[in-house]
Amino acid sequence: MINTSGYAAFKSSGQLAPFEFKRRELKPNDILIEIDFCGVCHSDIHQVKNEWGNAEYPMVPGHEIVGHITKIGTAVKKFSVGDLAGVGCLVDSCRTCSNCQEGFQQFCLNGSVGTYNSLEKDGETRTFGGYSKCIVVDQDFALIIPKNLDLKTVAPLLCAGITTYSPLRHWGVGPGQKVGVVGLGGLGHMAVKFAHSFGAHVTVFTRSENKKADALKLGADEVALTNDPQKVLADHAGKFDFILDTVSAPHDLNLYLQLLKRDGKMVLVGLPEIPPNIEVGNLIFGRKTLAGSLIGGIPETQEMLYYCGVNNIGCDIELIHPSKINVAFERTLNSDVKYRFVLDMKAI
Amino acid sequence: MINTSGYAAFKSSGQLAPFEFKRRELKPNDILIEIDFCGVCHSDIHQVKNEWGNAEYPMVPGHEIVGHITKIGTAVKKFSVGDLAGVGCLVDSCRTCSNCQEGFQQFCLNGSVGTYNSLEKDGETRTFGGYSKCIVVDQDFALIIPKNLDLKTVAPLLCAGITTYSPLRHWGVGPGQKVGVVGLGGLGHMAVKFAHSFGAHVTVFTRSENKKADALKLGADEVALTNDPQKVLADHAGKFDFILDTVSAPHDLNLYLQLLKRDGKMVLVGLPEIPPNIEVGNLIFGRKTLAGSLIGGIPETQEMLYYCGVNNIGCDIELIHPSKINVAFERTLNSDVKYRFVLDMKAI
Repeated sequence: MINTSGYAAFKSSGQLAPFEFKRRELKPNDILIEIDFCGVCHSDIHQVKNEWGNAEYPMVPGHEIVGHITKIGTAVKKFSVGDLAGVGCLVDSCRTCSNCQEGFQQFCLNGSVGTYNSLEKDGETRTFGGYSKCIVVDQDFALIIPKNLDLKTVAPLLCAGITTYSPLRHWGVGPGQKVGVVGLGGLGHMAVKFAHSFGAHVTVFTRSENKKADALKLGADEVALTNDPQKVLADHAGKFDFILDTVSAPHDLNLYLQLLKRDGKMVLVGLPEIPPNIEVGNLIFGRKTLAGSLIGGIPETQEMLYYCGVNNIGCDIELIHPSKINVAFERTLNSDVKYRFVLDMKAI
Repeated sequence: MINTSGYAAFKSSGQLAPFEFKRRELKPNDILIEIDFCGVCHSDIHQVKNEWGNAEYPMVPGHEIVGHITKIGTAVKKFSVGDLAGVGCLVDSCRTCSNCQEGFQQFCLNGSVGTYNSLEKDGETRTFGGYSKCIVVDQDFALIIPKNLDLKTVAPLLCAGITTYSPLRHWGVGPGQKVGVVGLGGLGHMAVKFAHSFGAHVTVFTRSENKKADALKLGADEVALTNDPQKVLADHAGKFDFILDTVSAPHDLNLYLQLLKRDGKMVLVGLPEIPPNIEVGNLIFGRKTLAGSLIGGIPETQEMLYYCGVNNIGCDIELIHPSKINVAFERTLNSDVKYRFVLDMKAI
């Protein structure tokens, strides 16, 4: 076993503290990653606070992991010692079901293995995430990281990046299209960067007047303030090909459905606690689609990272010392971050 | 003006009675159709009872119209006197907006003209539907009817037929796919016929044990009884490529979303009065789609009629004398019809 340390939650209070624990010895397909940076995802807070009801403690969060490889298993061909590598939300899956076979490990029909607060496929080993000094992971679930990017801006691509890249790609967002992005947080700011990079005309929907300048700087062509829904409707009804909704707080989806053109699509990547009401007329009149999307599979996550390398896309982040994680959680809950905290794990 | 007669509602009680009224003289593009048959659609009852809040009386319902042409305008090239012709839910639209130009007159951005309880594009002439002896309609909104079909079974194709054909075609239902049809009424029975004809494996979801034999006879491969949702889930979760939901009474959409495979699609063609709650997780986990569809445009309605001609598809109907319309409404509300009442307008 490999001794390591990190930050863990010990109960649902939401407070993290230093924690010493062990990683498994490398199996033939494993790599050992010394973690350089780990992003702080809002879902880390949900998990730590047991808001999804499945928390096991101690819990080491973190699924936006980048670092460099210090050891490889005997069968590893994909990586060499010294290479950069990344780990996202998944560290294993059944690999045999139709979804896994087609590269959609996030939808593994036998249950994929989460990077933390999950059980390995042996059914007993608990997984610990990236708020730690190192991680051992199967090479098939590790991602190749383009060398030209600023590494600390890459970490959140592993969740915030792929979560927005995947639906924009799947539904064919591109030049000549009018695309809306609801919310300008960790997910939303990446959606703006990608949609702009894909050539679409991008409108950001936000409640905050003070996010306007930032949205435009990130690549938005336009900002619509949602504190006046009647004005939003008057200005934008029936104009959008695609709307990506990144907000998980309760909000009215019907407003946005009315902004779609015929055959327009609205895709949710946030998971509101209260099931929203849908006025069915907003779907029927205009043959509109409401859909959902969840991160991405390993092949598409790799594709996204290559795309970011070629197009020099990273996340806008605030780098912090891991000992400040509890402050980072507080500030994330208050939307007081532009746009993602990243833990400097080398500084631990 | 052309004198005619039919059955009209005079107030929101839901009772119809004989009514004499006038049709316009033929303009150059108009045809005069002597109506042979008119289907009774559930939406006729909603409209008569002012349940959509826009009723104007007297109202002559009926938008599933077939008959033969007795007169044509000076510019009519599409039809000759003696030809069969049909009229569905629309009799005009702006013809210039992007939706009209692309053949989606049902989504006319300037408002299409309904076959009844609507205003013509002149802004003042009220439209009267097919519960009548004749109708004057622009040739561009009249459909060519295949001669080989039993005409009385064709009438409901103009609404029930196109409402189900269009989404099954648009979302590419075909061989090798598992398709669900929720509800076995006027719409549902046509959905079964079309999905079966397109080569899909068809499962009917119904509360009624006694509809089982009929469903199989109509082309279903399987019937699932929805009065036991836990059994439905156990037997069918994650198995469907496409589900067409034809039920407008309140019911739980989340059950059906759970039956979809990854990338599965559920399409609503009924308009429930109470907006349903959607568990967003049912969309996100599996990248699933909930969408809506509304009848079809004129080109697709024509395509559907040709398809029915070639494949010998009609509706299963019960032919009644127009004087029995109030009984037909009652029985339709009680789901006591297999599967559509058609008024024999020649018998008036």
